[in-house]
Formats: sequence, structure tokens, C-alpha cells
Amino acid sequence: MKPFVAAVDWGTSSFRLWVLASDGTVLAEARSDEGMMKAISLGFPAVLDRHLGDVGAGADLPVMICGMAGARQGWREAPYLDTPAALDDLGAQAVTIDGQIRDIRILPGVAQRDPDWPDVMRGEETQLLGAIGQGTRSGLVCMPGTHAKWVELRDGVVRRFATVVTGETFAVLREHSILRLALDGQPQPEADDPVFLETVRAVYQDPALGVARLFAIRAGPLLGVRDPAQGAARLSGLLIGMELAAARARFGSIGKVQLVAAGRLEGVYRAALRAVETSVETVDADVAVRAGLLGAARTIW
Amino acid sequence: MKPFVAAVDWGTSSFRLWVLASDGTVLAEARSDEGMMKAISLGFPAVLDRHLGDVGAGADLPVMICGMAGARQGWREAPYLDTPAALDDLGAQAVTIDGQIRDIRILPGVAQRDPDWPDVMRGEETQLLGAIGQGTRSGLVCMPGTHAKWVELRDGVVRRFATVVTGETFAVLREHSILRLALDGQPQPEADDPVFLETVRAVYQDPALGVARLFAIRAGPLLGVRDPAQGAARLSGLLIGMELAAARARFGSIGKVQLVAAGRLEGVYRAALRAVETSVETVDADVAVRAGLLGAARTIW
Repeated sequence: MKPFVAAVDWGTSSFRLWVLASDGTVLAEARSDEGMMKAISLGFPAVLDRHLGDVGAGADLPVMICGMAGARQGWREAPYLDTPAALDDLGAQAVTIDGQIRDIRILPGVAQRDPDWPDVMRGEETQLLGAIGQGTRSGLVCMPGTHAKWVELRDGVVRRFATVVTGETFAVLREHSILRLALDGQPQPEADDPVFLETVRAVYQDPALGVARLFAIRAGPLLGVRDPAQGAARLSGLLIGMELAAARARFGSIGKVQLVAAGRLEGVYRAALRAVETSVETVDADVAVRAGLLGAARTIW
Repeated sequence: MKPFVAAVDWGTSSFRLWVLASDGTVLAEARSDEGMMKAISLGFPAVLDRHLGDVGAGADLPVMICGMAGARQGWREAPYLDTPAALDDLGAQAVTIDGQIRDIRILPGVAQRDPDWPDVMRGEETQLLGAIGQGTRSGLVCMPGTHAKWVELRDGVVRRFATVVTGETFAVLREHSILRLALDGQPQPEADDPVFLETVRAVYQDPALGVARLFAIRAGPLLGVRDPAQGAARLSGLLIGMELAAARARFGSIGKVQLVAAGRLEGVYRAALRAVETSVETVDADVAVRAGLLGAARTIW
């Protein structure tokens, strides 16, 4: 099959490239940790060229990029689309990198310029474009991660969205707070961990108490009234429970959610959402970002 | 006046000693950063002896200590009193350090061995003993700090309490999360900062949305829709607002609160509590801990 586009998801700390045929078939791929943070010093063109060489891309193969490469501190700033943002417009709004032998474009992120709820995304909008091609074009979408995004879609338009820094809060509390003494070396919980699910449910029911439950993760084992091995499950359940309650408060209901996720996180969020009576359908996050990059490429080439 | 006792508040990261007359008059004092963390390597007796020498304490002056020196990893473990814990019993339950030329005792902390709400305090119980001598013996007490404590008292008995790790969460998010980009170099807010107070009120009214407001501290200035200088005021207001809402959820009402605090934190919490219609009376935290140590000493010597 003939290569149609090199699709690149260029995040803060990761780089992923797929050579795609026009029907989306993956002909080759490359991954590395040369995300924006490393590419700033290595040079964005050098990183991209090396990966294109590794996968044997022809000199005329165009490149479609999403993510932090389009941030102000990235390769070239791709100005945000403002909410309400039509996902079908993403390709047309991509910026072109000048002075390259091939056609290289970077997709815009989406900004919510509401002074009460200012918010930004870069990369997730491309996953959303891919997801709406496979699932529904309207409804609530949950995209878990370091900075989880909750997005209200209506007919392919991002109406409003909310970022909840669940993954990052877990990481900084585990590494830098008193809770490190209770979580030392513990893996993140599996989706069927009963302590995790019970904590999600309890916090979702009474989210105001969430912050009053953090210290107990340390005090419980200290006093011998809780199993020391449950610390990570409790912290994860607590933060995800607070996230779900925040989404309910912001969007009115989370009765039905489209989950764009992959791997362990997909299982954990699906289980957490089901524990609070949410109906969940999953779109694989990797499939979604490739489909979004391909969809945007098709509107141009 | 004749020295009656050396009163020592020995925290995780600070050491404070006062030579007190029997009526509580401060005859001499010493402070350092030789809290438990440093004293573990320096040796607790060496740290104490040096400070006693500096203030010219006689060889027969007894020493009453509260705080982390009584933790398992401290000088000598002073087992917790369990809730419901009568503050008047603290002195009688102090442990004696053997093999010293003078009488040295460490006061116990208080433990809440409820598997749903396990919690511990060390040091605050002594402030409480001092505070009830000056204020009310019943009601809700707020003790702000790295690990803020909310305590329900009835006739001098600690019925139940809750720790909210507000100060520590502020510190780890400021130093280690994406929010550091929005807070860099900003001081903590003053008590009359309108953005701080407005944030406290908004989060107190709808605490479930608290975690959904964190990322906006970064996104607002990035999009130019919020003043970049307001980041610390917003984060502080958000965390204190969540703390007040958690206290309301846990104790039913925070309509009337005794605040045991000092310095900037006293002003900030008084303003935050008044912003949510709470009636506040303050007991100075330094005065309270001295009064508590003196009160406990009087029950023994």
C-alpha cells in the first residue's frame, strides 16, 4: 500500500509517528521519549527527520502533527481554535512549517477563553476528531491522564471542557508529600481493586469530604487500623472519585460517557465510571489519535 | 521570678523552648530549626542540653515537651491517648525520659482509631489544652498549618478531629506541578486579598468543583484572561475553601469556630472563615502551646 501521510502525536514527553495509508492502515511506526521537552534542545526538525528516515519515508510524504509541538514554546505556535470549536475545521486551521522539503503541518489546540473557566488542550482535540468518526458526535467524553480532559460535544463541536489534573496530583502527592510514607513502592491499582472502587464510590457520594480523607491514607496504617498495602488504591480512588464528582458538578450529569483511553488507565476509568452507575463506551486513544490525524490530513491532501 | 519549667514545643522541623515561671511569665526563650528531622541525627539530648545551657537553666529545672519528639521515630515514643481524649489527662500520661539529670517528660499525642477516619495529632493537643484554659471548653477548633487540624471539643474532651493537608498541598503543587509556571515567585496572599476571598467563597459554595478549578490557575494567564499575579491567591483560596467545606461536611456546621493560630496564617484563616459567615474567636497559637505545657507541668510538679 502507498504511504499517504506521516501522522505524528508530539506530546510534552513523548513522540509517536505512524506512516499511514489513505485508508488508515499503519505501514510503519516509531516511538521515543523525544517529546517537546527534549525536542526543544535537540531541535524539532532533527528529531522528526531522524524518525522519518528510520521508517523510510519518501521525501514527498507530507507530515501531520498534533500536540505540544504546536505550543508557544514548541516548534511553531499553532494558534488555538476557540470554543465552540468545530473539530472538522482542525485540518484547515493547521499551520504550515516553512522552508522544509516536505509539507509539514501542525494542528491547533482548543482554548476556552471564559474568565471563570479558562482552559486549553493540545492533542486531545485530534483524538476527539478521530473518536467522533468512530463513536458519537455528541455527548460527554472523558480522556484520562496526567491532565484529564472532560469534553462536552454537540454534533462534532467542542462546546466546553474541563481539565482535572488527577494524574499529576497523584504523582506529586506520592513523591513529595507525607503520603509518600504510605505509598512507597506501591503500584497504581488495578481496575478490579475493591478498595479502589469503594473509595471512588464514597468520595463521589460526598466529594466535599475528599480532602479530609487524604491524611487518613497515612494515619490508617500508622495506627494499625488499615492495611498498609492499600495506600495507592486509596489515593487513586480518592482523586478519581473527586474528578468524577467535579465532572458531574460541571456538566450536570455523567450518566453516559465516551471514554477515550488505552491500557491500564482505560480499565481503571471504565471500572470507576461503572462503579458510579455511568454507562461507558470506550474508543481506544491510540486508534483515535491516528484517525484524527488521518482525518485532518484528508481535508488537505 | 523563679523558673518553674522549661516548656518545649518540638515539631517536625522546628524547636522552641521557653523558661516559664509558675504563673506563665516567659523568663527566657530559644528557637531553632532543630526539629525532629535534624534531632534524629544530632541526638535529642544534645539539642535539648545545648538550648538549656544557652538559656541558663538550672540542673534541677524540669522539662515538659510536646510534639514529634514523642513520635515513634522521635526521642522516645509517648503512646497516643485515644479519642474521646480528656485534655486534662495529658500531663498524667506523659512519658518520662530515663537516665537524665533532670526530670524530662514528653506529652502524648491523640489518636482516632476509627477505620473510616483514622487520624493522629502530636503537639496540637497541647495547644488545645492551653486554648481551653483561655477560651471555651466545647465547640469546633480550627488549627491551620501544614497539616491543618479541625477538632470537636466537648467539655475539654477531644471527641473527634480531622486533618486536612492544606499547607502541604499548597507547597507541593507550587513546587512540583504544572502550577509552578503560574505561581513562580509569588508570595502567599494577604488576608484582605479580594481574589483570595472570592475564591474561598466560590469553592465553599460548590466544593465538588474545586479540583476542576486547579488547572485554570495556569490556563487563565496563558490565555490572557486572568491576571498572572493572582495565581497564589487563587490556589490558596481554592485549597482553604475546600478545607472549610470539608470541615462543614465532617462536623455538620462551621458557624462558630475557635481559631488557634498566629501570624499571617491567623489573619488569612480569620478572613476566610468570616467570608463564609463563620463567627471566629482567635487564641494565639504560641500563647496556647505555652499555656498547655505549663498546665500539664502543673498537674505533675
